[in-house]
Amino acid sequence: MNERFASLEEYTPGEQPQDKKYIKLNTNESPYPPSKSVLRAVTKKEISDLRLYCDPECKKLKAEMAKLFGFNGENIFISNGSDDILNFAFMAYGTKGAAYPDITYGFYSVFAQLHGVQSEIIPLKDDFTIDVEQFKNKGKLVVIANPNAPTGIALSLKQIEEIVKANQDSVVLIDEAYVDFGGESCCKLTQKYENLLCVGTFSKSRSLAGGRLGFAIANEKLIADLEKIKYSTNPYNINRLTQITGTATMKDNAYCLSNCRKIIKTRQWVTDELISLGFTVLPSKANFVFVKSDKISGLKLYEELKSKGVLVRHFEKDKIRDFNRITIGTDKEMKILINKIKEIL
Amino acid sequence: MNERFASLEEYTPGEQPQDKKYIKLNTNESPYPPSKSVLRAVTKKEISDLRLYCDPECKKLKAEMAKLFGFNGENIFISNGSDDILNFAFMAYGTKGAAYPDITYGFYSVFAQLHGVQSEIIPLKDDFTIDVEQFKNKGKLVVIANPNAPTGIALSLKQIEEIVKANQDSVVLIDEAYVDFGGESCCKLTQKYENLLCVGTFSKSRSLAGGRLGFAIANEKLIADLEKIKYSTNPYNINRLTQITGTATMKDNAYCLSNCRKIIKTRQWVTDELISLGFTVLPSKANFVFVKSDKISGLKLYEELKSKGVLVRHFEKDKIRDFNRITIGTDKEMKILINKIKEIL
Repeated sequence: MNERFASLEEYTPGEQPQDKKYIKLNTNESPYPPSKSVLRAVTKKEISDLRLYCDPECKKLKAEMAKLFGFNGENIFISNGSDDILNFAFMAYGTKGAAYPDITYGFYSVFAQLHGVQSEIIPLKDDFTIDVEQFKNKGKLVVIANPNAPTGIALSLKQIEEIVKANQDSVVLIDEAYVDFGGESCCKLTQKYENLLCVGTFSKSRSLAGGRLGFAIANEKLIADLEKIKYSTNPYNINRLTQITGTATMKDNAYCLSNCRKIIKTRQWVTDELISLGFTVLPSKANFVFVKSDKISGLKLYEELKSKGVLVRHFEKDKIRDFNRITIGTDKEMKILINKIKEIL
Repeated sequence: MNERFASLEEYTPGEQPQDKKYIKLNTNESPYPPSKSVLRAVTKKEISDLRLYCDPECKKLKAEMAKLFGFNGENIFISNGSDDILNFAFMAYGTKGAAYPDITYGFYSVFAQLHGVQSEIIPLKDDFTIDVEQFKNKGKLVVIANPNAPTGIALSLKQIEEIVKANQDSVVLIDEAYVDFGGESCCKLTQKYENLLCVGTFSKSRSLAGGRLGFAIANEKLIADLEKIKYSTNPYNINRLTQITGTATMKDNAYCLSNCRKIIKTRQWVTDELISLGFTVLPSKANFVFVKSDKISGLKLYEELKSKGVLVRHFEKDKIRDFNRITIGTDKEMKILINKIKEIL
């Protein structure tokens, strides 16, 4: 195998154990099912039509998204999960390197390594916020998750614009996987800045993690680049049923928004409870909280919770090994979590 | 954008016009729907579970395939269509270049260009067969579609083994997208040769083109390479419903085999009819025939058929521009095709 790949350290997804039924608060899935309109959209006819190739252009889905987001189809790229776009972006725009925070989505460094892209890894500030000044005038691909993961902390739209404006000779990718839980989307800024690639997903706020659907909004030139790579790798990569369920999801956006509001409310309750138990809880604008306690190590809490049937995510990384990332589930699930934590402490 | 990509000529998929209802004989889809067990497998519960990530290891599907093909899970790789595997193979094994026929699946040259892989393009013989001797001792990645596309002509298992045996220091990828329509699969040879990567798909004989499901069978070392690239690009790329429909398809393999027999029978009838109309028909082991007539140019026949509501595939390439590739549909569709051709001639 190509030597560059032989030494790759691949991404490790959150565990999906099959040994017993857990309360899964470890992979930031929505606790709420997709809209009823999604269930209705997957008809026997559509399943039967799986014999036919899917539309490589995803025209119907794009049209529905264009309507909702207020863009033209040429400003939207559809992908097999947003990982697909991140991969393409490192491939297409990483020639001069890529800058991203030290604590962020773990896949960025994998993509960099995969495509031989030189990484400039910029430390978060002591309060785990992104140091905006450090991301200006980079002359290379800039990648920022906003809100950031696993911290949950968001930059303001104004801060994002500062970064985009100060990097007009290179692409700035803003990964908005978690933006619908209280963050501010920068997608409208793509009408003003040609270098901004705004990336979204159906996996979190839209309850379709298992459908695999991501998207980018950008100037048509950037979108044309992504389309070119897609048509040079896997043009049919969005299967028929995902196109259909995605379209149905867009049509019932009110349902997704209402779920987001529920999750934000639950997040506030969980935050208050954890603080009252002495936890440090970073200020989250995502569907998870990133928390630590002086009374128990991050790993120990993760292990104890797992033994009690609750899965959270622990990262073995120096700066954050005291923490756990806890997905916001239903109120019922979060009450169980809090009770288990009380038992453990 | 990275200059290598800026100059890429992407793959052009077969047209999918939406302006009217055509008899689609242009993209080698199955005319038969997926098995009834597939329809039963997509329950409301499964659609509702789309909120959860899919299994990145595709364990259930792999187990079912292992049972059917008589391999271990470690010998099977699952992908988002077989294009995914071809892409990975050029990426992983193309360091010293790649050899493939001049007339073959058009995507090979796109992958080569995408990954900066030097191509050695080996002409078919005058009778459109692959020149086995020319594919020996290459010292680079060897890629052969068997049966070949768009010719439909197959090499024997013995010829494939000769090629694999004569390239033991490099990977030989045999693309068996069309093998179930009369060809001989080389998958068992992977137990004997560590350099053989046998690639298959659910898109043709298994009626799941719109589901996007491909697979590779090989020695566990090659499979581990592919898994590593998958986990470094898009670990969740097989969505939940595709895993479910694929598993159900495997469980009703008898249905797929019976469809293949029907298609082979229809192919024989179409071949006889076209020959009686004066066509040259290459000896096909695929679900299509590659045909030409001295009475009408390839392009003209394609255009006339399109105007009469029948889509076939024409390739603008010197050596084959006299030909059209015609997918084998149902008996009814093929009778209409033959009648339209009679009208045109």
